[in-house]
Amino acid sequence: MPTEFAQRRRRLASQLAERRLEALLVCSAPNIRYLSGFTGSNALLVVTGDTAQLFTDPRYRLQARSESDCGVTVARGPLLVAAARWIRRHRLRRVGFDPAHLPYSLFEQLDKELPERTRLTPAPGLVEGLRLVKSAEELARIRRSVETNSRAFAATLSLIRPGLRECELAAELEYQARKLGAERPAFDTIVASGPRSAHPHARPTANCLERNHLLLIDMGAVQDGYTSDMTRTLYLGRPGQRVRDVYRAVLEAQEAAIGAVRPGATAEGVDRAARLCLRKAGLARAFVHSTGHGLGLEVHEKPRLGKGDSTRLEAGMALTIEPGVYFEEFGGIRIEDTVVVTPHGCEVLTPTPKELIVI
Amino acid sequence: MPTEFAQRRRRLASQLAERRLEALLVCSAPNIRYLSGFTGSNALLVVTGDTAQLFTDPRYRLQARSESDCGVTVARGPLLVAAARWIRRHRLRRVGFDPAHLPYSLFEQLDKELPERTRLTPAPGLVEGLRLVKSAEELARIRRSVETNSRAFAATLSLIRPGLRECELAAELEYQARKLGAERPAFDTIVASGPRSAHPHARPTANCLERNHLLLIDMGAVQDGYTSDMTRTLYLGRPGQRVRDVYRAVLEAQEAAIGAVRPGATAEGVDRAARLCLRKAGLARAFVHSTGHGLGLEVHEKPRLGKGDSTRLEAGMALTIEPGVYFEEFGGIRIEDTVVVTPHGCEVLTPTPKELIVI
Repeated sequence: MPTEFAQRRRRLASQLAERRLEALLVCSAPNIRYLSGFTGSNALLVVTGDTAQLFTDPRYRLQARSESDCGVTVARGPLLVAAARWIRRHRLRRVGFDPAHLPYSLFEQLDKELPERTRLTPAPGLVEGLRLVKSAEELARIRRSVETNSRAFAATLSLIRPGLRECELAAELEYQARKLGAERPAFDTIVASGPRSAHPHARPTANCLERNHLLLIDMGAVQDGYTSDMTRTLYLGRPGQRVRDVYRAVLEAQEAAIGAVRPGATAEGVDRAARLCLRKAGLARAFVHSTGHGLGLEVHEKPRLGKGDSTRLEAGMALTIEPGVYFEEFGGIRIEDTVVVTPHGCEVLTPTPKELIVI
Repeated sequence: MPTEFAQRRRRLASQLAERRLEALLVCSAPNIRYLSGFTGSNALLVVTGDTAQLFTDPRYRLQARSESDCGVTVARGPLLVAAARWIRRHRLRRVGFDPAHLPYSLFEQLDKELPERTRLTPAPGLVEGLRLVKSAEELARIRRSVETNSRAFAATLSLIRPGLRECELAAELEYQARKLGAERPAFDTIVASGPRSAHPHARPTANCLERNHLLLIDMGAVQDGYTSDMTRTLYLGRPGQRVRDVYRAVLEAQEAAIGAVRPGATAEGVDRAARLCLRKAGLARAFVHSTGHGLGLEVHEKPRLGKGDSTRLEAGMALTIEPGVYFEEFGGIRIEDTVVVTPHGCEVLTPTPKELIVI
């Protein structure tokens, strides 16, 4: 029986045939992992209609052979030169590459190494296209990652009090996730209190949490290679009317976007649902990013739930739904879940409650 | 007084003038941070002879203005389009870019967006060249990062015992580093016991540490943006003669390489010193990677202490020295310090002892 990787390469091969390409040079690490199983940091992969060859350096000799079902070339020199030699030896003439992942310098080097009869053709997004809809095994991993992430959040909640430093809280969140099975954070954990929460991508500082401040936590785990992503906004003290009103509006926008997720809906349609809700509340201008994004092997994958992305959603896609609003003095409020598109709508994977957490 | 960033841009400007370039498009995040102070994840920077403009998205509006001394454009669409528009408006005709950091697709898009009179010229490694020699402030940050890393290792040592899982140990090491001031690990912490230590880049597994096994730990911290990198090899139980012999040979090779670090020596010369030592011990074939690398804002920077890199060392460069040998059943032994080149030799920053740690 072919491995899951071989099955994916077969689906890729049929796309190559459609485009009259004999091979694809794969450069991005997550794409290489998706197609070959190899998880090392330095590799190239060439996939043809009926074979696949992985190129890596001697540090990964044992690992490549144990993780991957592909042929393996351990190169002492530049991987690109080894891959070009292999392409030459196999007399491949029409080789595709993903222009978003190949630096200009490697394109030039490759073009120089290959014989004139070999034509390099940009073939953007083929592997990302395959990765859009997740397999049952992938969804199980995403689910585990989401659960670990939420359990780490729950395990840390009791430590949150005025006086704790943002960076200490971030360290605790990551440590709990690690102890619960995460390999690493999916991105730099955001712990932003008070006015700093108005920075959607704030880094934790040595500032102490304070009473009567908002506290925004955005965290994700990587487990078995797959990511999760969740944001919750808390309040230390008794929230005033404005905090409660804005929180409610963001939560309604988030629920509206979740309600819009179903097969056939567009990525930008989901964004529109959130935006419309915030417009009604007079908060549209404070919503300065898109409503969410796909996730899987990477924490930011296609589609982008924002204006201009007309991708039709399909069952098996995993997405984040994360509207947020930001005001320079007041701070920021964002609520984010990881969801998966089901045949008739979507399932919210994130088990953490969404009411404003008051501490 | 100009900021440190302005001083760096001035040094870059004189390099641009030498190459008859009017501007450089900077795409890599560490290069952008080095030249502008901006630490966000999504940005482009254009540096000319007398000005610099940073392009980012609305999530980073507040952060860009507080961190950077450059002009800031907050773009709602693609950053590259905004940068091209700025280049057009300033009628720049000779624009350099780093071909190692610009994906082929962005090169094509940029070429399309710019008027015909504007010529895009590959200008590889200019900013990396400036980053080779660290300022006193940068060295202070590297030193703090090295100290945090070693203190985290020391704080975790007492927990190491048979039965502890590799991944638990990795979690503890990272947690301690975080608590001591690190922002994040500089790379995925390596904790590899027994035969897994033969994989130079092993990831921690759920395997338990066992008596009479080697244990290889490779860890690094990021603190104030700057990295550290250290490897120590331990033994659980009473090491046999072969372990002690191989350990001694690796330590001698590491000391020989450190002895070879001085201004004027070449990067490959340092590698040769380590390799020669291991050859005498009959271990050269098991040393499957280079002797080390520069580090700073990134954990892998130029130069590469390996064959073919003839960079002359200069005072103020920060390097790792990390020979290692690997045998499929026996396991791996590597010893790594972070050092800085001084006017007459080098200073080893890593304070952790280097004798075989027996537990």
